[in-house]
Amino acid sequence: MSLNHRPIDVAVLGCGTVGSEVVRLVQASAADLRSRVGAPLALVGVAVKDVTAPLALAGLDPALLTEDAVGLARRADVVVELIGGIEPARSAILAAFESGASVVTANKALLASHGPELYGAAERAGVDLYFEASVGGAIPILRPIRESLAGDTITRILGIVNGTTNYVLDRMTGEGLELDDAVRQAQELGYAEADPTADVEGFDAASKAAILASLAFHTRISADDVYREGISGVSRADVAAASATGHVIKLLAIVERRADGVIARVHPALVPLEHPLASVRGAFNAIYVEAEAAGELMFYGRGAGGRPTASAVVGDLVTVARHKVSATLGPGESTYLSLPALPVTAALTRFQIRLVVKDQPGVLAAVSRVIADEGVSIEAVRQTPGSHGAGLADLTVVTHRAAEGALAKTVAAVAGLDVVAEVAGVLRVEGD
Amino acid sequence: MSLNHRPIDVAVLGCGTVGSEVVRLVQASAADLRSRVGAPLALVGVAVKDVTAPLALAGLDPALLTEDAVGLARRADVVVELIGGIEPARSAILAAFESGASVVTANKALLASHGPELYGAAERAGVDLYFEASVGGAIPILRPIRESLAGDTITRILGIVNGTTNYVLDRMTGEGLELDDAVRQAQELGYAEADPTADVEGFDAASKAAILASLAFHTRISADDVYREGISGVSRADVAAASATGHVIKLLAIVERRADGVIARVHPALVPLEHPLASVRGAFNAIYVEAEAAGELMFYGRGAGGRPTASAVVGDLVTVARHKVSATLGPGESTYLSLPALPVTAALTRFQIRLVVKDQPGVLAAVSRVIADEGVSIEAVRQTPGSHGAGLADLTVVTHRAAEGALAKTVAAVAGLDVVAEVAGVLRVEGD
Repeated sequence: MSLNHRPIDVAVLGCGTVGSEVVRLVQASAADLRSRVGAPLALVGVAVKDVTAPLALAGLDPALLTEDAVGLARRADVVVELIGGIEPARSAILAAFESGASVVTANKALLASHGPELYGAAERAGVDLYFEASVGGAIPILRPIRESLAGDTITRILGIVNGTTNYVLDRMTGEGLELDDAVRQAQELGYAEADPTADVEGFDAASKAAILASLAFHTRISADDVYREGISGVSRADVAAASATGHVIKLLAIVERRADGVIARVHPALVPLEHPLASVRGAFNAIYVEAEAAGELMFYGRGAGGRPTASAVVGDLVTVARHKVSATLGPGESTYLSLPALPVTAALTRFQIRLVVKDQPGVLAAVSRVIADEGVSIEAVRQTPGSHGAGLADLTVVTHRAAEGALAKTVAAVAGLDVVAEVAGVLRVEGD
Repeated sequence: MSLNHRPIDVAVLGCGTVGSEVVRLVQASAADLRSRVGAPLALVGVAVKDVTAPLALAGLDPALLTEDAVGLARRADVVVELIGGIEPARSAILAAFESGASVVTANKALLASHGPELYGAAERAGVDLYFEASVGGAIPILRPIRESLAGDTITRILGIVNGTTNYVLDRMTGEGLELDDAVRQAQELGYAEADPTADVEGFDAASKAAILASLAFHTRISADDVYREGISGVSRADVAAASATGHVIKLLAIVERRADGVIARVHPALVPLEHPLASVRGAFNAIYVEAEAAGELMFYGRGAGGRPTASAVVGDLVTVARHKVSATLGPGESTYLSLPALPVTAALTRFQIRLVVKDQPGVLAAVSRVIADEGVSIEAVRQTPGSHGAGLADLTVVTHRAAEGALAKTVAAVAGLDVVAEVAGVLRVEGD
């Protein structure tokens, strides 16, 4: 490989936590990156919101700064988009493609909502669109799915893809905190935004689920196709009950290939302690992949943060820059299967239903009968004295796999029983 | 991408456990693979040792079989080498390159001993050499190192890369078996060969360490550069002592980047229970990667077996076939750093030294003084009554990080003390 190729012009759009680390890495590792790319990387500009605002990054030539992201995107061979959100990120990426630039982005929301448009524009322009950092931060997961597993059939992915909620649930488990206190702690440590809705309500995880499903199943799944339930309904009591039965609660992004389509969903779930995902602590992420030939695989690492995310971004940058040098392209969108997105009611899941019941003979029989009448089969029942006062007991029912659609009906039927004082919690059980 | 490209001719050399699964996958997934490659894959031949021997694979056209691996290698666009060992695998691969074919192989021994020769021949021929299955079986690890982490600086890799020894150590830990009994169990289950030397003595892991070090550090490291110590010296007592201090014993392949070179080594080590590698059970593999920006990553999955290994092989096959269709190449050998391989004595490690000592005052002081005199700093000392008869006690010393070279001298000095009856075990401690 000749090292005499002309420099590859790189534009970085956005200079926040990730952007400033990308610029720092590109400058600090210039010699290594030159050897790996086969040409030097030349930083031709950094787009920021306000050129007069102070930068986190020391030593950046102020002449490189611009507020015109779209204009800058037209002046580079490779555009690194780290603005986030839909606009102006989308316009800048489309402008980059129009002028023949390849694009690296970490923008999960944009990909999950406008993926086909971006892929189409990249293909028409004959350029690359890479986005490893959009799922799992530093964890190499999209390239393994797109390329390493291209000889296999992926059947299911279970992912802990949101570090904020994993941190929150971990604190609730480890310290017995209530959700609000754990969220506050995460905010103090910088793991959660001032407005934590996108994380806590599962929007972030749903975008990532859409990206994972599209790549794994060679079809188009958007964020709107993903069933979404956040962790705001998870209580300290739920966490304690999970521990009592050898589980931890995790917010999972689950995408499954079914004969008739794809189910993508995000919701909290009980995971058995023996499952590799159960020991993913703090703000770490992990993606558990099930494939027909490979069996079970897990990819673990830091799912967020400036430096880890920058690692993934610059890894993509090296790849697309190398493609520029050798005038080649990586794999584009693969949607040859065009599978329909199925509703969450098509999923088969196990449920744990926690009930407060009257402490009297025949309760277990009554509850069991009603559940069986809904066509749901019971795996285990556990009755404990409980802490709800005299005459009441806790009853926990774990079902075998049953249709999601049967869940609501089952819970309603159980709640209607005279002997049931309260349905204290309903959670899915995954990873068995 | 046009689907009208002429078929890509594929030759499979070797039709054992992995080879027959590769042939099966290529045939069973023909439609999917065609869409992913952009052209059909045409199986033009399967090389076997004896064309009259019965095959594990049903339905394979006998006309495809040949005993002439080298001749077959000249008749394909892509050659999948699964013969193993040095010859005739090496000659067949070189013949493939000469005739313009790309090669996919799982042959760790060949790569670790003849890597530069093969890379050189591939580069001269302008073809691809891919070998994901050579390390970690189904686990995508080489592509993430070569490509996903190309923007980062890998500092260290700790790998459980041999499923046989992990299974054996796991049985010793879980069931309190002695090594020989655990090996026999592994043989009965097909996890260990009739002659288990390559696994038990760490030769297999050393080949994989050489491959990992070469890719991670952009330099040439061969199996001969790897310090190697197997698990044959690990006793049930070692395993029990490790458990008592919150550790498990794992056979680790460790490759480290130092300012002045690379250290590659394979040896058993105590791993703290909290470390992600500690919970890797049975015959599973896991590779733990430390990189400057990404932080810690772990890749987990099935490290052996026909179907998992075939998943990685066919993944590579799709990639190199796609390159044939688009007339491009993947990244070649990257050795721009040319770092020297350093001896194991340059490593800094922690040791756990188990001693049987006389149960009398002043023993601890005497042992501590001798260790300090060798320049080794002690982290913890634990004295327990022991089971060695009256007047004797167990003394376990854990050191801080110290030069490997100080280990032998320290142990010799301690062994020479009057108060020390026996040096019962010396093991490194890693992953803290």
